Amino acid sequence: MVKIGIADTTFARFDMGKAAIDELKRNCSAQIVRYTVPGIKDLPVACKKLFDEQHCDIVMALGMPGSKPVDKTCAHEASLGIIYCQLMEGKHIIEVFVHEDEAAGPAELAALMDKRAREHALNVVKLMFKPKLLEKEAGTGQRQGYEDVGPARI
Amino acid sequence: MVKIGIADTTFARFDMGKAAIDELKRNCSAQIVRYTVPGIKDLPVACKKLFDEQHCDIVMALGMPGSKPVDKTCAHEASLGIIYCQLMEGKHIIEVFVHEDEAAGPAELAALMDKRAREHALNVVKLMFKPKLLEKEAGTGQRQGYEDVGPARI
Amino acid sequence: MVKIGIADTTFARFDMGKAAIDELKRNCSAQIVRYTVPGIKDLPVACKKLFDEQHCDIVMALGMPGSKPVDKTCAHEASLGIIYCQLMEGKHIIEVFVHEDEAAGPAELAALMDKRAREHALNVVKLMFKPKLLEKEAGTGQRQGYEDVGPARI
Amino acid sequence: MVKIGIADTTFARFDMGKAAIDELKRNCSAQIVRYTVPGIKDLPVACKKLFDEQHCDIVMALGMPGSKPVDKTCAHEASLGIIYCQLMEGKHIIEVFVHEDEAAGPAELAALMDKRAREHALNVVKLMFKPKLLEKEAGTGQRQGYEDVGPARI
Amino acid sequence: MVKIGIADTTFARFDMGKAAIDELKRNCSAQIVRYTVPGIKDLPVACKKLFDEQHCDIVMALGMPGSKPVDKTCAHEASLGIIYCQLMEGKHIIEVFVHEDEAAGPAELAALMDKRAREHALNVVKLMFKPKLLEKEAGTGQRQGYEDVGPARI
Repeated sequence: MVKIGIADTTFARFDMGKAAIDELKRNCSAQIVRYTVPGIKDLPVACKKLFDEQHCDIVMALGMPGSKPVDKTCAHEASLGIIYCQLMEGKHIIEVFVHEDEAAGPAELAALMDKRAREHALNVVKLMFKPKLLEKEAGTGQRQGYEDVGPARI
Repeated sequence: MVKIGIADTTFARFDMGKAAIDELKRNCSAQIVRYTVPGIKDLPVACKKLFDEQHCDIVMALGMPGSKPVDKTCAHEASLGIIYCQLMEGKHIIEVFVHEDEAAGPAELAALMDKRAREHALNVVKLMFKPKLLEKEAGTGQRQGYEDVGPARI
Repeated sequence: MVKIGIADTTFARFDMGKAAIDELKRNCSAQIVRYTVPGIKDLPVACKKLFDEQHCDIVMALGMPGSKPVDKTCAHEASLGIIYCQLMEGKHIIEVFVHEDEAAGPAELAALMDKRAREHALNVVKLMFKPKLLEKEAGTGQRQGYEDVGPARI
Repeated sequence: MVKIGIADTTFARFDMGKAAIDELKRNCSAQIVRYTVPGIKDLPVACKKLFDEQHCDIVMALGMPGSKPVDKTCAHEASLGIIYCQLMEGKHIIEVFVHEDEAAGPAELAALMDKRAREHALNVVKLMFKPKLLEKEAGTGQRQGYEDVGPARI
Repeated sequence: MVKIGIADTTFARFDMGKAAIDELKRNCSAQIVRYTVPGIKDLPVACKKLFDEQHCDIVMALGMPGSKPVDKTCAHEASLGIIYCQLMEGKHIIEVFVHEDEAAGPAELAALMDKRAREHALNVVKLMFKPKLLEKEAGTGQRQGYEDVGPARI
């Protein structure tokens, strides 16, 4: 049985982990393990532990970088660690980051975090169970959290 | 028989994977494996999997970074992962990125993505089958997607 | 018995290591090892040594990046090293950085360094002894050193 | 016999590889292997292959980053890969990059690329055959391609 | 007997390696090995060689980044390589960089390079022979090359 890890943070202002788990449960049959850490810079090793200690096949890393310049730097560092962890493991980590300043206010922020977490949960389902669906969508301008932009035509 | 991996994304707005595969088929005899992932930050591990699980000899990583500052950071992170993956494997990944803001509009964008994918497919053919051709072109100002700028002369 | 490493610097202008150790001792029963190095760029290998030579289960890396652009770059480099060290070890390093320019003056700076060190020490306690508490706080907008911002609601 | 690898690109607008090889041949007796790749981001793995497949003792990585911001990012990524490759191998890669916007026009650009490639070829000779010469020049403000600035005096 | 590596460059405008060696000899009994390379980007692998080929216990990496934006990028790349090398080895590299634009002119520059090299040499002595002295200085605002700023008080 496929095992999916959910790594999320106490820093974020919406429970993206819960949204992702709900969406995963609606769309596939998999074992789910959750691991919550303080902030996004703790996510890379949280993913490493989910792979090595919990034997997950894929992990979602969910976080909300703040809006200050230092937060952007933190997000960049976390992302590099997440990419590096994937290369060490040879397994996917689907990073789901919503920057606090992507939304005009708290309600919009929470809605965006919910939507992006759910849409990326569907990407996890496709990667693990239906990879041919992703190939069909290649180059079609898919977006998560926003409306798809669609393909550009010559 | 040479095995070429094609890693591309659903985020991109043109099917660069298809263009690359078409060009490869016209110009060499190789086995081709395709793997589509959501976005450019998923490309490094997609390449890793194409090497380790599919035993590819070389991979093309095709993507279209968006035009916002956060997209530029994503492209930078993906590129570092792609370089690091190559060093882990000792094998080439030809990165084919077209930034969405390189083109004035959708038609120009699609044409550029098609052209750059095809011209880099030819680089793959040269690297795998005719490395001496690349040596002949050393220092001659080759470009992919745009006209070659040619050599500078003293 | 859990062993906690404390890596800190002589560059910082407040003894964050002492504050962290005091808070740890009040809240858990663990063995504590301290290692002081000159600056934040020495912290990644200090953590590595605390894991490999002292067999720590988790490490706190405490530092105070200065306010000049070069100091921001140093902090970025140190953070990348700290993330990379965690991936090598599969163990957490809780980074506690207070940027000198986060505070208006020395008194505010010292108070912030004390508070953030203590609040992150509590995160260490939760990670090692009560991980379910962190899961309860997922997505609730926790902050260390400042007031929590709380969750955003749809 | 010492084996020197020469990694260069078709993107560059001057044949720096040829200049480097010419200068090496004038100044030492070594076996030389050349490997040309499309662009600077292909250089790190080109060096890796020159070490692992061709058993080179040292490699020169020659390239010409373009003048656009994206080119500066590419150069940064290539340089990080080149540094990382050296650490994996424990062997030197002498990076010889000339940024296209270092020169006012094509003739100056070509002259600078020729001169820097040649002067760094001499650094390779010193590293492999006369390391004591470098020690004598320590702290003397050596430059490659431009006039030496010389030491600062208290 | 402790073995200390000194890695420095011909690019720098003051012989920091000599200053560091002089200060080390005045303050401890250790074997010293020096290795001079062209520029700061050659320092990470120089340190790697000092550890692996010369069996050093600790290394000082001394350099003078120039004042242009490209030089700042080089310094950043070198620093990342130096941090990464430390993690590979589990041993300290004390980076001693003086940016050319830290000083108003050549005399001030040379004096700063001399002073910082010497003060960091004392850090090396403390790390290897008297680590408890560093712990005593934790959080006291130590600086190298400039006057110490001292602790901030609540």
